[in-house]
Amino acid sequence: MSSCWPYALVDPNTYFAGYISGHIFDGVRLMIMLRRLLDDLEGFSRIGKETRGTTRLAYTDDWMKAQTVAKELLEATGMETDIDSVGNLTGIRKGRETGLPPVAVGSHLDTVPEGGNFDGALGVASAIEVVRALDEARVETKRSIQVNSFACEEGSRFGVGCIGSKFMVGELSLNSAQEIRDLNGVTLSECIQKAHLLGTEPIVKKAGDIAAYVELHIEQGPVLENLNKPIGVVTGIAAPTRLLIEVRGRTGHVGTVPMKARKDALVAGAEIITGIEKTVTETDGSGVGTVSRIEMQPNSVTAIPGSVKLWVDLRYLDEEKRRTCVEGIRRLAANVMSKREVDIELKTLTNEHGTMLSPRVINVLKQVADSFGYPYHEMPSGAMHDAAHMARITDVGMIFVPCRGGVSHAPEEFADPSHIEKGLNVLHKTLLTLANQ
Amino acid sequence: MSSCWPYALVDPNTYFAGYISGHIFDGVRLMIMLRRLLDDLEGFSRIGKETRGTTRLAYTDDWMKAQTVAKELLEATGMETDIDSVGNLTGIRKGRETGLPPVAVGSHLDTVPEGGNFDGALGVASAIEVVRALDEARVETKRSIQVNSFACEEGSRFGVGCIGSKFMVGELSLNSAQEIRDLNGVTLSECIQKAHLLGTEPIVKKAGDIAAYVELHIEQGPVLENLNKPIGVVTGIAAPTRLLIEVRGRTGHVGTVPMKARKDALVAGAEIITGIEKTVTETDGSGVGTVSRIEMQPNSVTAIPGSVKLWVDLRYLDEEKRRTCVEGIRRLAANVMSKREVDIELKTLTNEHGTMLSPRVINVLKQVADSFGYPYHEMPSGAMHDAAHMARITDVGMIFVPCRGGVSHAPEEFADPSHIEKGLNVLHKTLLTLANQ
Repeated sequence: MSSCWPYALVDPNTYFAGYISGHIFDGVRLMIMLRRLLDDLEGFSRIGKETRGTTRLAYTDDWMKAQTVAKELLEATGMETDIDSVGNLTGIRKGRETGLPPVAVGSHLDTVPEGGNFDGALGVASAIEVVRALDEARVETKRSIQVNSFACEEGSRFGVGCIGSKFMVGELSLNSAQEIRDLNGVTLSECIQKAHLLGTEPIVKKAGDIAAYVELHIEQGPVLENLNKPIGVVTGIAAPTRLLIEVRGRTGHVGTVPMKARKDALVAGAEIITGIEKTVTETDGSGVGTVSRIEMQPNSVTAIPGSVKLWVDLRYLDEEKRRTCVEGIRRLAANVMSKREVDIELKTLTNEHGTMLSPRVINVLKQVADSFGYPYHEMPSGAMHDAAHMARITDVGMIFVPCRGGVSHAPEEFADPSHIEKGLNVLHKTLLTLANQ
Repeated sequence: MSSCWPYALVDPNTYFAGYISGHIFDGVRLMIMLRRLLDDLEGFSRIGKETRGTTRLAYTDDWMKAQTVAKELLEATGMETDIDSVGNLTGIRKGRETGLPPVAVGSHLDTVPEGGNFDGALGVASAIEVVRALDEARVETKRSIQVNSFACEEGSRFGVGCIGSKFMVGELSLNSAQEIRDLNGVTLSECIQKAHLLGTEPIVKKAGDIAAYVELHIEQGPVLENLNKPIGVVTGIAAPTRLLIEVRGRTGHVGTVPMKARKDALVAGAEIITGIEKTVTETDGSGVGTVSRIEMQPNSVTAIPGSVKLWVDLRYLDEEKRRTCVEGIRRLAANVMSKREVDIELKTLTNEHGTMLSPRVINVLKQVADSFGYPYHEMPSGAMHDAAHMARITDVGMIFVPCRGGVSHAPEEFADPSHIEKGLNVLHKTLLTLANQ
């Protein structure tokens, strides 16, 4: 096996023994075929495989190929599939009562540049495996089950994420979506025209059209691993507040300006960076804040830093704490500005509100985890997901499984098959429960 | 007049009135023609003029054009000129005793990208004007006067500066020089072949070949302006110690890793940045230290900084204080490393020693400044100059004139004509004194 696939070194006798997991539901034993799921995941991992990690940016040939594979896997189960005008793939497994809104399950197949093999792909492959397992056990559900592979969840190509789910719930119009440009200036509209796979019909859902949405995803953080718990029940999805702090000092020759006569923008910026860490830590233990990007001028070995731009990302579920933290950062910037006689400008780039997930679905998830005897942890998601947008029109739940070292968006992204198995079981039983409500 | 030239808005009746300055020497009144000097400077400023500042990188067509103009100006005075195999221009005004080593004067005509009109060019144009003034007054000197326009003083193209003067004093061999590559991978050898202006003979000088070297330059810092003194007598030239500090933490999703579980390389780097400022300030009031360049990975708005590289430039004339400062920075890095559990590597990129200038020439400079009644300030140069390399083979002195706001290496670089006039007078009389010793 190629080294692109992280299980290459795992003993197949331990993990890949076929039907290794199952549970009884309504008197029928449903078997999950972990090996088949891992094979599908490996199949996706080979699309867009690069020297370092997997790159399947939205609307590229590689992403379209992955969407096509997912479409074919869905159709192989007998599902009807559709691709809408921004590239969302939908498959329908009909329930007994087709007049009722379906329950939906899914995730996305696009990746960041040099990403891993689990972020998104795990949710899509799991949804497909759940349907296959239901078919094999010949289980009928009351409501139809809808599988979604959303377009362009990652923000790395267009600077905007969750384009597919935003479009599906009517949060983003087709016209607005089409005008979004990627980092090279190519519009989404051009991407769509180039991608012949895409359908022409917008499929917009509104409140009541879908009974519930569930998504299985790797945690992308170290919390579950540190707690040694296989299941995370997500309580809400924190949205980012992004600030841009620009410090303007005065450049000059590194050798000729005495220390006292300097207005070094980087030293002022460094005080802001350490100050933000302090402010975030003191505001609340659950929120996080990061100076994630820096740009400096002239950034030359012989020049005193003249200006520095800092991008700040804050994630809070609690609106009050978010506000407190932003106020703290504003005070910090003002203090550094007066102390160092530099000019500091603070702009709010985005200020989205967090999304609380559905207590009804959360309860089902917890009961299901308990029924398996799986330890779980209730936790917010600091990362954005399509689930947050689906929550605008329906009851949403999310299941996290641990990822090794909390690493994600990197080739080293890895989820243990024993955790995947548990996540898949919880997804399966939850979906069945919801589809029969 | 074009806006590229900073005197465009200066009232010509005030500054450009022809022979506005002069001094008596050996009973002859020598007149300096400030307007003529400023016209020459303007001429140079138009070569490589860009929307923002002047760009005359070494060995480009624009720099070659500037060297050719200087050569023609020297030849117009009747001097014999020569260009050596790395591009150094030399002109000789013969003295009475041609067997004696000449006194040399000069600077350079290359600039940094988007540089100003005074750094280097002032010294070359002043040297030319001094010779013209001697000719007009029909003054003979005992020793010959050698004017130099050195090749490639700025390090911005090749990452190495003072190539011409290093070559002239035998510090850099022709073979080594030819292998140096610019930031695009082009070798100096290829540059030289392309530049047909260059001579084929290396002209290497050794101790005793030159009686003294004097250079007039803008200060490139704010010290003289702040002291309100028109003349700086340079005591020594501090050489840079350059460190590269690499901090390796752990990247991750900005939303998903709790603050306590992070190893944020940028926050660790920020503690080093503020710590270096503190260490330098506490070590010694005269030394300076700068974190001038930063590179960060992944530098993406959604990723916790995984690694940060910091380039540090330290300038001390006193070797003991330099060592103390570097030790302080090493201790600082070790403390941050153990406190934040990140990996920190500190490399020394360059560690040159400072150069003390000649007490003999410094004395002449001070006496000459006194004779004019010009207030002067004895000071080290934090910036590197060809003078530091000439000091390997001869007695060297340097004259600084103030530049507005201490700004240099930028389009805003500006030297007041009244200061230039004083600098030119000091250069002129000093050179005459040395040439007759």
